[in-house]
Amino acid sequence: MNKRKEEMEQRIVLKLAYEGTSYHGFQKQEGLSTIAGTVEEQLRNLFPWKMENFIGASRTDQGVHALGNLLSFDTEGKVSGEQILRALNSYLPEDIRVMEAYSVQQDFHPRFTPHRKAYRYSICRSKVENPLRRRTAYHYTFPLDCGKISEGMELLKGEHDFRSFANPKAQSLLQGGSSVREIYRFSMEEEGDYLHFSVEGNGFLYHMIRILAGTLLELGRGRISLSQLEEILEKKDRTLAGPTAPAKGLCLMNLDYGDFQTFLL
Amino acid sequence: MNKRKEEMEQRIVLKLAYEGTSYHGFQKQEGLSTIAGTVEEQLRNLFPWKMENFIGASRTDQGVHALGNLLSFDTEGKVSGEQILRALNSYLPEDIRVMEAYSVQQDFHPRFTPHRKAYRYSICRSKVENPLRRRTAYHYTFPLDCGKISEGMELLKGEHDFRSFANPKAQSLLQGGSSVREIYRFSMEEEGDYLHFSVEGNGFLYHMIRILAGTLLELGRGRISLSQLEEILEKKDRTLAGPTAPAKGLCLMNLDYGDFQTFLL
Repeated sequence: MNKRKEEMEQRIVLKLAYEGTSYHGFQKQEGLSTIAGTVEEQLRNLFPWKMENFIGASRTDQGVHALGNLLSFDTEGKVSGEQILRALNSYLPEDIRVMEAYSVQQDFHPRFTPHRKAYRYSICRSKVENPLRRRTAYHYTFPLDCGKISEGMELLKGEHDFRSFANPKAQSLLQGGSSVREIYRFSMEEEGDYLHFSVEGNGFLYHMIRILAGTLLELGRGRISLSQLEEILEKKDRTLAGPTAPAKGLCLMNLDYGDFQTFLL
Repeated sequence: MNKRKEEMEQRIVLKLAYEGTSYHGFQKQEGLSTIAGTVEEQLRNLFPWKMENFIGASRTDQGVHALGNLLSFDTEGKVSGEQILRALNSYLPEDIRVMEAYSVQQDFHPRFTPHRKAYRYSICRSKVENPLRRRTAYHYTFPLDCGKISEGMELLKGEHDFRSFANPKAQSLLQGGSSVREIYRFSMEEEGDYLHFSVEGNGFLYHMIRILAGTLLELGRGRISLSQLEEILEKKDRTLAGPTAPAKGLCLMNLDYGDFQTFLL
């Protein structure tokens, strides 16, 4: 095993953008069409080398989109990131694109190397949904108090135990993992009939952003108050928070590893 | 026939938005899936009344999108626009939406009532295409001189014989129709990696906007000069203009009938 490990010449990192609509999420699953599974399969079709240790940065759910998820793997192949990018983009289905590809040092790890994650949750507020953007926004027509939503975001910023905003079936929670996370930035942008909730943090629990979005919509709609939102956060009880907003409104925008340049080979 | 005509109680106008990707264009065609054909079929499934005289404002091509095309028809059914809108949106495929629906006077005609047409042609300029917007933009990676494109748009504005920018197979041209049209507005907006060409006029010849877009890209890329563009316009010869840009970058944005309110019943 050790010998094989040493033979692996380099670690490749792919920055992936994808429309999640047609996939059973990011993570490879036997017998199901997934983002990581599709990319790995295409790599094995294209290149003869041994490739192993495939690791994704974020295991986005079924239907969630991304503009910058990472997938890394180790290979003995002497090939540049640019060659891999061009080859993959010629053969991958058009709903998955390799935006960038690099050779990196072995100490870079998509999950364990510290990074900030930026997500966006989009809402379409027009009476009838724009069919050109139906796959990437949640159609929600109830009147919303946007000022109230911004106040809610302020309240949620910072380091908290977000257990109330996590799917309790999350493996990490079942295994006793921490539900404390820090939200660095949480803001709302209006773009015509669309609302975008932009959130950046050191990590998010299973379904956390979708439950935060669903709860902020309840707040904007007037079904809960700011003090109730505060109480929900304090009680650490998922049953008190709002519904899990649909996957299609969510997009992983960016993963920021700080000075990523220092990892490049 | 006259009797049947008189029985028709009202003219209904539907404002349609659609993603053209999966359809053989707007206009109804026997045995092919089209926008107008799908809407008409669904209307006939939903309502028992006689419906006839279906007329579309713009016969958008296969793959072209719209946010505001019109389809009108006459019916003896006593039903409000709002009822039709709700019923259709419950049963139409999600890539076609009825954005608005009205009862109008019989003298309103989607094509013959004078109106301004606004289209947008979108270009994605990033090295790798954003998969979330792949259906609605033309991926074009050559460096472009945007100032030059704006100058080209200035030159094309106004009333001209646009024969050089029309597909010569157009029925109207083969039947000796005029190829003089007026462009009221022609401008370019940059949005991140995207360029949008917005054009408004009293009408456009078959493929005209796509040929204008293809030619302006040749200008921006430096393959033709402004004086050559002027010459192309003057020569009235399709073979001199640039290629027809792909359908998917084109979207019918709006049709402006002036004081549309006056036509409402």
